[in-house]
Amino acid sequence: MMRTLWQQSAAIIWISGVIDSLLPSFLKHENISRLTEEGVFITDRRKLPFERSEVFCSDYSEVSEAIKSMVTQGGGPLEAALNALLFTYRTSPESLSDAVLSLSSARPTNTTMKRELERVMERYGKGEDMEYVIKSVFDHYDALYDRISDIGESLIEDGDGILTTCFPEHTFMLSVRKAVMNGKRIVVYIPETRPYLQGSHLTEPSVREMGIECYLITDGMAAHFMREGKIDKYMTASDLALDDRTVVNKTGTLGNAIAAHYYGIPYYAFSIGMDHGKGQQDIKIEYRSGESVKCIGGLKTASDDASALYPCFDIIDGELVTGIITEGGVV
Amino acid sequence: MMRTLWQQSAAIIWISGVIDSLLPSFLKHENISRLTEEGVFITDRRKLPFERSEVFCSDYSEVSEAIKSMVTQGGGPLEAALNALLFTYRTSPESLSDAVLSLSSARPTNTTMKRELERVMERYGKGEDMEYVIKSVFDHYDALYDRISDIGESLIEDGDGILTTCFPEHTFMLSVRKAVMNGKRIVVYIPETRPYLQGSHLTEPSVREMGIECYLITDGMAAHFMREGKIDKYMTASDLALDDRTVVNKTGTLGNAIAAHYYGIPYYAFSIGMDHGKGQQDIKIEYRSGESVKCIGGLKTASDDASALYPCFDIIDGELVTGIITEGGVV
Repeated sequence: MMRTLWQQSAAIIWISGVIDSLLPSFLKHENISRLTEEGVFITDRRKLPFERSEVFCSDYSEVSEAIKSMVTQGGGPLEAALNALLFTYRTSPESLSDAVLSLSSARPTNTTMKRELERVMERYGKGEDMEYVIKSVFDHYDALYDRISDIGESLIEDGDGILTTCFPEHTFMLSVRKAVMNGKRIVVYIPETRPYLQGSHLTEPSVREMGIECYLITDGMAAHFMREGKIDKYMTASDLALDDRTVVNKTGTLGNAIAAHYYGIPYYAFSIGMDHGKGQQDIKIEYRSGESVKCIGGLKTASDDASALYPCFDIIDGELVTGIITEGGVV
Repeated sequence: MMRTLWQQSAAIIWISGVIDSLLPSFLKHENISRLTEEGVFITDRRKLPFERSEVFCSDYSEVSEAIKSMVTQGGGPLEAALNALLFTYRTSPESLSDAVLSLSSARPTNTTMKRELERVMERYGKGEDMEYVIKSVFDHYDALYDRISDIGESLIEDGDGILTTCFPEHTFMLSVRKAVMNGKRIVVYIPETRPYLQGSHLTEPSVREMGIECYLITDGMAAHFMREGKIDKYMTASDLALDDRTVVNKTGTLGNAIAAHYYGIPYYAFSIGMDHGKGQQDIKIEYRSGESVKCIGGLKTASDDASALYPCFDIIDGELVTGIITEGGVV
């Protein structure tokens, strides 16, 4: 059972610095979003790893705009939004409700961000100190990542070749980091993850920074390495995880999960919160503009007249999922 | 049984123009390589579809160089080499043996080119007219493509969604063209085929030019469309096809073949000549420089320090292959 956010926040404030020190630089709080007296700075993930620059936001509406324009993604919008809320509280507390509305609607698919912002307001409304509440949300997630990655680490064996997809952020990164710290020798295979190349841009530099042997491959190559016996585990993040073990994750995950199934390789998805009670009928796969498939960064890779399709996410049916790694254990 | 090249050449010279007229422009003889009084022109496939330019070669050694530097690929090197041989015959017949040696070694993996050049010399040595012999090789392949694509066409049903991989040249293109000419409505799904993007650069414009509904997707998306019920057939070319139905084809083919197998979708590979008597132990998968995985055209897509792997080809075990489409039927 998921524990609610605030039941445990007091006990785990100590852990934040430890987790941060284990994470690769792109995932350290400071490098996701930081709050100063002037406003909120957000690291521009669109430019990583070639350029490290921050977008400066002088108020919550600028943070909303930055989130809308994909300056940050994954767990980044939540951190930026929490900083925006704290900045609003400090500078114009009368705008707090407007800030929550604006930030929540900046990325409609990010239901975690919306839920957490509303919980913060609920606690604040009940008289809790805003500074403390927001700090406790950050700490809650650090503690959650810590617990989940302990379980992830326990599934990794010495000598494992591990395939991932996209940018599996904190839970995966901490799992492999802890595995290596425990003396396990592992090799990570990282598909580039077209169209946005999160594998090339974010995952590969992060895994390499942690001193772990890793190889970048194209999205069509994973099955080859499975067939060669190089892959022992397939591990990804998840955008949704249902009770029947259905997982929703970045496009490309399904094909690799099927290949893993075919070769008898276990597939584990990390989840920071199962979507209890939901079914596949509740999932609507977002189609984004096919233009992303016709270019890479600013470089055109296909004819202007080509029609392209970009279903953002894959639905991976439960029979392909060996287990979902949650804070409560492997489901 | 494969008929040898020269048994049928006389009868099928008429077919060349017909086949050429059915093919998309990138595959017409004129647009692969052409012979003039000055020398051999080869279309530079590296620049397609954005720029149509030809590399001019004033002798066979320049053709060898062009083949080495990947100006053309697939069936292109054979056509360029035949033109180079004919040009050598017309201008400096004393160099014919040197020309065959030079051209054959320009692309060691292209065993078809080497074999055909040696056969031409054998026939010429027996007194056949060189002009006729070379023309008959071109005609032989056109006739072969015609017969194989009749079989390919017969496997396509009205309403089919067809997935391919890489640039499946004449046999696939003629199959889908003939299917449409026979009133079958089809949709073709085309993975971009990283790292060289043959899907984006060559296949998509070719299928679209033939007036066939088609969609470009990234290499990780095929399983999604299979799961959605959009794909009814998976059809690719093959670099090698063994008696046990093992197929060797461009990286990315295996993952899609496994997904097709999982969803009960038939996978057919076209072969213009089975490699009888060979086994999987004879196959050595070439690893090219991982640098290709770290860039797209001139654009850097990964960190300089990243390690990347590029196994060029996949081995697809026979149990994943529904049939190999040859001139003699479906194996």
